[in-house]
Amino acid sequence: MDFKEKMIDRKKLIDRELIRYLDSKSIYQQKIYESMRYSINAGGKRLRPILVLEACELVGGNIQDAIPFACAIEMIHTYSLIHDDLPAMDNDDFRRGKLTNHKIYGEGLAILAGDGLLNYAFEIMIEKIIEINNPNTIKAMHEISKASGVRGMIGGQVVDLLSEGKEIDKETLEFIHINKTSAMIEASIKAGALIGGATEGQYSVLSNYGKNIGLAFQIVDDILDVTGDEKKLGKKVGSDQDNNKATYPSIHGIEASKKFANELIRDSITDLDIFNDNADFLRKLSQYLEIREN
Amino acid sequence: MDFKEKMIDRKKLIDRELIRYLDSKSIYQQKIYESMRYSINAGGKRLRPILVLEACELVGGNIQDAIPFACAIEMIHTYSLIHDDLPAMDNDDFRRGKLTNHKIYGEGLAILAGDGLLNYAFEIMIEKIIEINNPNTIKAMHEISKASGVRGMIGGQVVDLLSEGKEIDKETLEFIHINKTSAMIEASIKAGALIGGATEGQYSVLSNYGKNIGLAFQIVDDILDVTGDEKKLGKKVGSDQDNNKATYPSIHGIEASKKFANELIRDSITDLDIFNDNADFLRKLSQYLEIREN
Repeated sequence: MDFKEKMIDRKKLIDRELIRYLDSKSIYQQKIYESMRYSINAGGKRLRPILVLEACELVGGNIQDAIPFACAIEMIHTYSLIHDDLPAMDNDDFRRGKLTNHKIYGEGLAILAGDGLLNYAFEIMIEKIIEINNPNTIKAMHEISKASGVRGMIGGQVVDLLSEGKEIDKETLEFIHINKTSAMIEASIKAGALIGGATEGQYSVLSNYGKNIGLAFQIVDDILDVTGDEKKLGKKVGSDQDNNKATYPSIHGIEASKKFANELIRDSITDLDIFNDNADFLRKLSQYLEIREN
Repeated sequence: MDFKEKMIDRKKLIDRELIRYLDSKSIYQQKIYESMRYSINAGGKRLRPILVLEACELVGGNIQDAIPFACAIEMIHTYSLIHDDLPAMDNDDFRRGKLTNHKIYGEGLAILAGDGLLNYAFEIMIEKIIEINNPNTIKAMHEISKASGVRGMIGGQVVDLLSEGKEIDKETLEFIHINKTSAMIEASIKAGALIGGATEGQYSVLSNYGKNIGLAFQIVDDILDVTGDEKKLGKKVGSDQDNNKATYPSIHGIEASKKFANELIRDSITDLDIFNDNADFLRKLSQYLEIREN
């Protein structure tokens, strides 16, 4: 299977499992499940869950064990987007070319759908941990929980919110990027590696890989917001500037940002040397993250 | 120690531990920790954490093991109040006599403080589970996660939100009450019992106790919203009626509601017979829940 086929194949697997988790039988809960499914199905690339599965497989693990963790991370990612888009935050009407959750279901239900997805992410991880009784899976959940919390993604989001319309320095921008975006991407790789039973050496290499692509991913995001194609992005270009948001390009310029992203991607590929050909998928994934158009 | 002294003593213990958890060293995160602390310190009775500790002790466990779970439940309870009070939900300016979180910190930060508390609750439980390595603690977290999620508290909150201004039947009201309030109270007792190493018989008795006081608690809440003293409650009386919310008194009348709460409290006390005098604190707690004024 070549890179593109495997990406599609893995995305299909994740899509199917997510829908299975979000199928409600209770007559009282149709609406909240519908709202959670709406955002889960709104066209994500499934990058984070694909990283979980790949890291698990690369170190010799069984991806069946990793699926609930992969789905949990996608639920956490999706909840963060729903809350981010709310009028009190970024106030976005569209994401990936579709109306945002609160534009369809109202703000109250959108807040609860986000809460529901975050909570459900933990529920499905806990259920798998009880089922397979492997201490590495608890460590994986621990990494995910730190990355998604106040000491990670939420912490980055808070500083981002408080910085809107203000001049911020490079250090603050880096704090936002590392916490808001990279932390969960790094945690995806770490979780997969832990579940798959990585050695300490493998774990350290993969953590580093995750850190590098995580930061590159956010810088490319910032660049796309300036130079991207609205149709391919599924959202308005220039929204960071409109919202008076500091970004890599706004602080360092487009060329320096592109160069930095390229260095991070090259480093991430070098990181993988110890895995020989087995890491070819992750190498291609790195390259894809640099040249992606959405 | 008599009942009242023990209540105060336990509340102090929980208050101290909660503050310890919510003390941030990071300069970037002062504001979000301040916002989380504000609502955590807004005068809660700490009923749920006290139930966790008491159930653990009653079955012979060490309350030190239960403290993170007790704090986690209070964080989850607090986050649910912060989100509940938002303009898109109940739109409340005051809770327990103090301004609500979003009135002080703004809606964006209030949403994130809620998200942060929910996520942090799981972080501290996971860290204790890794530390003490006892499978019962994972089961305790599982009960808490189910009770706080879409199949519990959030599910109840959703139906509550969607029912505002509508006529609802008794079954729907019961669904809301059982999920929105009782589920977390029942989970508090269950979690403490599991952590303490309860036998199956003890666990079943305590679960039943939790179910009974959980429902009684919500019915008394509904009654206080009609007959309570605003000063003692710390919030406006009659807000359910103003919000056109169905409650036990609005569907069954005040007298029948009082009678039902009394029956549930009596049942909860009978439930505890197998524990002899050791359950005196929980018996008194049941009685207190019926006669409480806030």
